[in-house]
Amino acid sequence: MTPEHMDIHVCDAAVSLAFSVLGKRWNGMILSTLGGGALSFAALRRSVTGISDAVLSDRLTELADATLVTRTVTDGPPIAVSYALTPSGKELLPVLDQLGTWAAANLTPAPGR
Amino acid sequence: MTPEHMDIHVCDAAVSLAFSVLGKRWNGMILSTLGGGALSFAALRRSVTGISDAVLSDRLTELADATLVTRTVTDGPPIAVSYALTPSGKELLPVLDQLGTWAAANLTPAPGR
Repeated sequence: MTPEHMDIHVCDAAVSLAFSVLGKRWNGMILSTLGGGALSFAALRRSVTGISDAVLSDRLTELADATLVTRTVTDGPPIAVSYALTPSGKELLPVLDQLGTWAAANLTPAPGR
Repeated sequence: MTPEHMDIHVCDAAVSLAFSVLGKRWNGMILSTLGGGALSFAALRRSVTGISDAVLSDRLTELADATLVTRTVTDGPPIAVSYALTPSGKELLPVLDQLGTWAAANLTPAPGR
């Protein structure tokens, strides 16, 4: 394998790794929404239009396992739970901005999507 | 609504639009793979590890509808069909590179993913 071929291989593996998280429905929107600051579960569900409680709960667990999101419990009463980006999650935000810029210039909102 | 709030709204809509395509399993990998140049259906299927014929066929139709991929038929025999990125698809490549760089620095390949 030449060095050039190895570069291509490494690059593809990294993009594949990115989509192991971002290629799953809702994850990009959840991370983007938390880019505005920490939110409660209910506020997050309202912001990510169309997601169900069960799916949002699953996704937050996965994103926490990937160390992109933290879950913080504040003693009550009432007990408050909030979700926020980790430093790794925050580093994704400028790339999400660029994805948005690309989409605005190159994609047309479709009725079916 | 203040101008600041309108900016946030527009940005979220654009990121949401990006993930209407990229938040669907395989699409990011297909576009990234075609970044290396035009490929036949069979070569594309071999490069996108784990995808089935039926799903790859569906995804290519969707990506063509979104004007990110072209399908070119060359008269035979044998007839040859190849898939390639459009200019809109090519503009995504630098953003995919940045996603890969972020993933390599911030994600750990998990056995279950």
